Amino acid sequence: MAPVLAEVTTNMNTIARLIDRIPDADLVVLPELCNSGYNFQSQKQALQTAEEISDSRYIKHLLALCRKYNCHIVSGFNEREGDRLYNSAVLVSPGGYLGKYRKLHLFFNELDFFTPGDCGLPVFNIGGCKIGMLICFDWMFPEVWRIMALQGADIICHPSNLVIPGLCQRAVPVHSLINRIFIITANRFGTEGNLTFTGLSLITDPKGEVLCQAGADHEEAVSVEIDIYKARNKNVTVRNHVIFDRRPHEYKKIVEPG
Amino acid sequence: MAPVLAEVTTNMNTIARLIDRIPDADLVVLPELCNSGYNFQSQKQALQTAEEISDSRYIKHLLALCRKYNCHIVSGFNEREGDRLYNSAVLVSPGGYLGKYRKLHLFFNELDFFTPGDCGLPVFNIGGCKIGMLICFDWMFPEVWRIMALQGADIICHPSNLVIPGLCQRAVPVHSLINRIFIITANRFGTEGNLTFTGLSLITDPKGEVLCQAGADHEEAVSVEIDIYKARNKNVTVRNHVIFDRRPHEYKKIVEPG
Repeated sequence: MAPVLAEVTTNMNTIARLIDRIPDADLVVLPELCNSGYNFQSQKQALQTAEEISDSRYIKHLLALCRKYNCHIVSGFNEREGDRLYNSAVLVSPGGYLGKYRKLHLFFNELDFFTPGDCGLPVFNIGGCKIGMLICFDWMFPEVWRIMALQGADIICHPSNLVIPGLCQRAVPVHSLINRIFIITANRFGTEGNLTFTGLSLITDPKGEVLCQAGADHEEAVSVEIDIYKARNKNVTVRNHVIFDRRPHEYKKIVEPG
Repeated sequence: MAPVLAEVTTNMNTIARLIDRIPDADLVVLPELCNSGYNFQSQKQALQTAEEISDSRYIKHLLALCRKYNCHIVSGFNEREGDRLYNSAVLVSPGGYLGKYRKLHLFFNELDFFTPGDCGLPVFNIGGCKIGMLICFDWMFPEVWRIMALQGADIICHPSNLVIPGLCQRAVPVHSLINRIFIITANRFGTEGNLTFTGLSLITDPKGEVLCQAGADHEEAVSVEIDIYKARNKNVTVRNHVIFDRRPHEYKKIVEPG
């Protein structure tokens, strides 16, 4: 989708319309900051579109959609807490709001509007499937994918507003492969001021295959059926396991070369 | 190249012949276990082709080549220490042997012949350029690339005997990109018993570009000139730095979801 800057109601309607195209989905992932848009022109504009999680019209809207379609939703969210803003992702279930992730690695001008994330890298158990959340530029930090895989994440939901063509879309299959997890990168398209977003949302599997990919410049609700147990099989060969083969003791050695 | 199993002298001659095609190279990277070959049929065969570093005809040969061409060489090496074998890489300069890396993540039947590496992840300073070594299947562990980048490695030399088509060759540009380092993957080709190796050696740069790539099934000595300072510029944007933007304190949080 292409969220419209500062038009929260318009964006809520767009989301409802798009989810209705995939009414059987169990898990829906939406782009970064898709309640508010991205390219704020002022702190005032960023604040005006932000909400507290405990009192959010936007999250109530997601909750209604979760109940209507019996699904979970992960969405980017311009989150206010007191006088701070966070570039967050929220996880909502038919039973209510479940939790949040606050972006750890802020990109470029986001540093002017948002406080860096301070809630670590939580992994949530939803009906036997474990999911983590990362946001956009986090993709460049191999630590975060790995830490979530080590916590047992089967799927990492990755709301994004990517502006650099191709790089993340090339890296995500590799992060999937080396951690043997599913990744859902939901990337917006469209233009806001001087920024053009690259679309090409994708879903990748534990073998690094791209299961489906959306277009670069139009709305699309893409869905795919996955077997979550593929993310639990961490064996690359019968004798090699991407997690158990790790050598943490060796990783920690401070080495005097020689 | 395609090392010949258990024919150390033949392999030494092949290496001399190939290096002579790139006489101006400053740094030469050779495949994994290219002194001995890879697919040992017995522990006896593995032992017969192994040498102690301090008394190695193979390393003396590399040293002579380093002096002849005024270059450094990184080579896979079937290393013996007492009654143990290691799947190692050695770094040799015109001034002599500089150091080794012992493969931390052994693949499949290597577990029958070799002891897992026990020397951590050293980074060596050669004339102002810092280089690390990894071997083949190590590619699948994002930790090791990252740890070497954090230690200031500009180039990671990656002797390989890859057997799974395409996976590593797709991942290496991403490891280069997210760590902003050069990677030289020197992969053998040819067949030994039931194993066929995939060639397609490649050199990648800190932007994730493939600077050059060798063929899949023939000998080739490929060289490229690089600007090492590109690996020192870790800025993705003027406000984003792939190392300084890390959030180690957050990475360590044990998170109770909610």
